[in-house]
Amino acid sequence: MKFCSECGSRVDRRVPPGDHLPRFVCDACGTIHYQNPRLVVGCVPEHEGRILHCRRAIEPGRGFWTVPAGFMENGETLQQAAARESMEEALAEVEIGSLLSVVHVTGAHQVHVFFRARLHIPQFGAGPESLEVKLVTPEEIPWKEIAFRSTVFTLERYLQDRAESLERYHFTEIDPRSAPP
Amino acid sequence: MKFCSECGSRVDRRVPPGDHLPRFVCDACGTIHYQNPRLVVGCVPEHEGRILHCRRAIEPGRGFWTVPAGFMENGETLQQAAARESMEEALAEVEIGSLLSVVHVTGAHQVHVFFRARLHIPQFGAGPESLEVKLVTPEEIPWKEIAFRSTVFTLERYLQDRAESLERYHFTEIDPRSAPP
Repeated sequence: MKFCSECGSRVDRRVPPGDHLPRFVCDACGTIHYQNPRLVVGCVPEHEGRILHCRRAIEPGRGFWTVPAGFMENGETLQQAAARESMEEALAEVEIGSLLSVVHVTGAHQVHVFFRARLHIPQFGAGPESLEVKLVTPEEIPWKEIAFRSTVFTLERYLQDRAESLERYHFTEIDPRSAPP
Repeated sequence: MKFCSECGSRVDRRVPPGDHLPRFVCDACGTIHYQNPRLVVGCVPEHEGRILHCRRAIEPGRGFWTVPAGFMENGETLQQAAARESMEEALAEVEIGSLLSVVHVTGAHQVHVFFRARLHIPQFGAGPESLEVKLVTPEEIPWKEIAFRSTVFTLERYLQDRAESLERYHFTEIDPRSAPP
């Protein structure tokens, strides 16, 4: 941020009075611009034991695999965001289930949230942000070609819980600077 | 948003090519400014059956009661944010426990997340954003003077779960335009 989004003047980065963190401050109009973590929301859609995977057509991670996920929009719930991303990226209508994982990607100022999901009808395809979409068995998961560590964490916990017939939720923190690819 | 935070030019609000929602677009430098929901994080600190409440010294809801909560900062986890807010608003060191509630305040573009928490030592006080801080029994909760509906929802679920010796998590969506006060 270089300019004030309210008045167009140059902003300064400093700790405002009574605050404890540096903020972008506009001396012309007095606005303090707070910056907060963004929510990335996704799901693990399952159909008869197989999991829906998308190969990314866009950066970051172009050519690598993920489950459907993306930035949450204003005006929607986490579950609506997860369902929307499945439709956009995999042209798949899913039923969102229980909370699966919350991954703090602190260095990227993101919180990733994943849900379990059901793909009732095996109908899907590559949306504009995907090169390819397919259902894979747990043994077929392309672990070395997964785009994001939050997806790896989520899939690992998903399979572990499924093996124990449990639906737990899992928190973790990862550093995106060491993320594949 | 009226001006581009990258170059200071006037922005235009429209649906960019390939997108489906209106965004603030800068025609001078090409930046598309995405706006996403913000996370508000808090906890329900308990000490020997009583719950820590803060009376707000700031708007919105000045003079009304809440549990410690506030906007999540970049670089922290949800649990760290909840603990920090307890220290800032109630000068209380808490141990964050299980996930309690997720409240979609869609109209305000916010997601509120609350955790259970333990106040091991009954040591607390009013931080700069609080007029008063106290421990109250469930019977003493000032239901009609709670500042936010997400707090009411969270406290209700907290007490209900506690009565059943369960630690569930609860999702809901509320419309802030009908919120007290």
